[in-house]
Amino acid sequence: MSRVYLDWNATAPLREEARAAMVAAMDVVGNPSSVHAEGRAAKGLVERARGQVAALVGCLPSQVVFTGSATEAAALAVAQKGRHGGRFAALATEHDCFRDWSEADLPAVHGRDGAPDGSALGEVMNRVLRDGPRTWSAAHGEAGLLAISAANSETGLLAVRGGEVVGRSHVNAFIAGAAPFAFVCDITQVAGKLPVVYGETKPSYAILSAHKLGGPKGVGALINFTRDDPAPILKGGGQEMGRRSGTENVIGIAGFGAAAEAAARDLEGGVWPRVEKLRNILESTLEAQAKETIFVGKGEPRLPNTSCLATPGWKGETQVMQMDLAGFAISAGSACSSGKVKASRVLQAMGFDAATAGSAIRVSLGPTTTEDEVMRFCDAWLEKLRRHRARAA
Amino acid sequence: MSRVYLDWNATAPLREEARAAMVAAMDVVGNPSSVHAEGRAAKGLVERARGQVAALVGCLPSQVVFTGSATEAAALAVAQKGRHGGRFAALATEHDCFRDWSEADLPAVHGRDGAPDGSALGEVMNRVLRDGPRTWSAAHGEAGLLAISAANSETGLLAVRGGEVVGRSHVNAFIAGAAPFAFVCDITQVAGKLPVVYGETKPSYAILSAHKLGGPKGVGALINFTRDDPAPILKGGGQEMGRRSGTENVIGIAGFGAAAEAAARDLEGGVWPRVEKLRNILESTLEAQAKETIFVGKGEPRLPNTSCLATPGWKGETQVMQMDLAGFAISAGSACSSGKVKASRVLQAMGFDAATAGSAIRVSLGPTTTEDEVMRFCDAWLEKLRRHRARAA
Repeated sequence: MSRVYLDWNATAPLREEARAAMVAAMDVVGNPSSVHAEGRAAKGLVERARGQVAALVGCLPSQVVFTGSATEAAALAVAQKGRHGGRFAALATEHDCFRDWSEADLPAVHGRDGAPDGSALGEVMNRVLRDGPRTWSAAHGEAGLLAISAANSETGLLAVRGGEVVGRSHVNAFIAGAAPFAFVCDITQVAGKLPVVYGETKPSYAILSAHKLGGPKGVGALINFTRDDPAPILKGGGQEMGRRSGTENVIGIAGFGAAAEAAARDLEGGVWPRVEKLRNILESTLEAQAKETIFVGKGEPRLPNTSCLATPGWKGETQVMQMDLAGFAISAGSACSSGKVKASRVLQAMGFDAATAGSAIRVSLGPTTTEDEVMRFCDAWLEKLRRHRARAA
Repeated sequence: MSRVYLDWNATAPLREEARAAMVAAMDVVGNPSSVHAEGRAAKGLVERARGQVAALVGCLPSQVVFTGSATEAAALAVAQKGRHGGRFAALATEHDCFRDWSEADLPAVHGRDGAPDGSALGEVMNRVLRDGPRTWSAAHGEAGLLAISAANSETGLLAVRGGEVVGRSHVNAFIAGAAPFAFVCDITQVAGKLPVVYGETKPSYAILSAHKLGGPKGVGALINFTRDDPAPILKGGGQEMGRRSGTENVIGIAGFGAAAEAAARDLEGGVWPRVEKLRNILESTLEAQAKETIFVGKGEPRLPNTSCLATPGWKGETQVMQMDLAGFAISAGSACSSGKVKASRVLQAMGFDAATAGSAIRVSLGPTTTEDEVMRFCDAWLEKLRRHRARAA
């Protein structure tokens, strides 16, 4: 029996289109900075990919700065805080690539039930202004830079405002009227799963990663919506128009571009409603027999592929290991903690106690997930649940 | 007639071993931070590569920190300057990934004739102590961090001390007795072309890049010889033992490892003396008919593959374009200047005037370069030289 991969939010399998583009790029010898034909060919691959990524995320090619990861893109965005008032803060539910730079302890904007709190953003701003480590300057109408993700990686919950499902413009849902803050929006989980369309007010920056949408790991991008080039954190050869030095990851970038193009095609082709249907089948199948299980954010605007479920008394870590032995790859919390499994900080920020947060798993599907795989997962997980209950009884 | 690639110091063609490792890695789905089987498989690829790179550069696997480029590794090393006295400076001939952070205007350690100046290091240190933007603190026996490359990318000149050819321990040639300075050594051009063997005194850090030795572009490493983990410049998920966050470039790292292993095998197999012989044939063939041409560092300890030649009155930029049209890829100065061609800063630092420095080209060979390619290059270049003379006359 082949293994079943249900951890797409941690990383997605490489798309065939990305693989083909990468293999083709292996034959391109040159350094993109070289002026000869070999160099120009390599440069051409990078620029083609820049256009493909720009098309997916709704920006100009010149606004795309390729990096070695979304984490590097986050650090590059944070490094621009001096232009936005000097302070930086991330919501409690953001990824550590932002949280580790955060200067203020902000709350989550979703409650335990996953319902978006209409007043949450105002609360966030008030909290920063009141309790921030220093008073944020309101000079120039901007008090600082704030990181908000378009979709949370663990719960899949979307950033919406009030009861309004923001749909195609969810990315900037929080942004309108949020001055004096500038925003950096983490679209890593949204890009390729939902259309990324900005409304009247764009974030100042967005970050994303190739490997969440079927490209290779180790390539990301900063999208710069400001008028100024971001000041680099990596200096030297002046690549990426001086915004990020270092010889370009030509093969990886070619894969990123091809994956972005394929992801855009999937979005147009209506692939994700099918994934959402499978996710809903998964949840309703489990729910029927697991009455004690909490499906976080069920019924609220979420990514179409993500299910976050907590079963109090049964450690998420244990579930992951048991399911791994049974042939299923899922996760407990974010993957990006170097193998360390601990109670989800995201769920705790939403109001769950540590025990409940520690009993959560994340099951995330993708375009190639089949109904058979979902049903096999449900059977196996429910069987493990029965054994857990028997042991606990 | 197929094109002839003689720009290996800008970037080397992907080795077959690297290509195979990368294609194989494309089938490994997991995120190295995930605890399930797919994640462990990905982690295994990264750790295997870490051992392969460590074996090539003579360090422990735990001393290898994978980065997105040598440029990022340089920035990471520079960020540790606080532990080494607080100041950072790079020699005048170093790559811009160091020069752009340098706080002092240091001289070169090779003269116009390419001969290593035995007193040059002492001069460098005196200059820093005397003219540095601030007086460097000599606290704790260390005054600052100094960047010195083991081999210069443009001229191929090795770091040697006095008349002593340091051979296998050239990497730390400058280092013995050089306290109160700590060193970061750029081994990007040396790794894979000469054995990297450290003597009694190691540098604190070394940096290198996969793509100079037949791996993919967009992967590098910091080698940390200090007892402390370097403080990260990229924070978040805690990858690379907290020393460099961001999901690992698994495919690229697998290629880096395979290329490093193949490069080590080539070194053992005596591939480079053959390359050196071809380089010498190239130089003597050109020299016989181009009496006005200066072969920089000829006869001095150099990389076996590199020829830097200046022909006063004939712009290097023009030569590169003419040779490109004729089917040959060479360079004028370092590739890493985003297509901008200007008079070599390295040659000017060695004492050449701007006109002579602006007339230099770099021809760099590799293990697959053939004698036929070299002779074709010589014929074509000498033909262009004759036409240049005719125009100039």
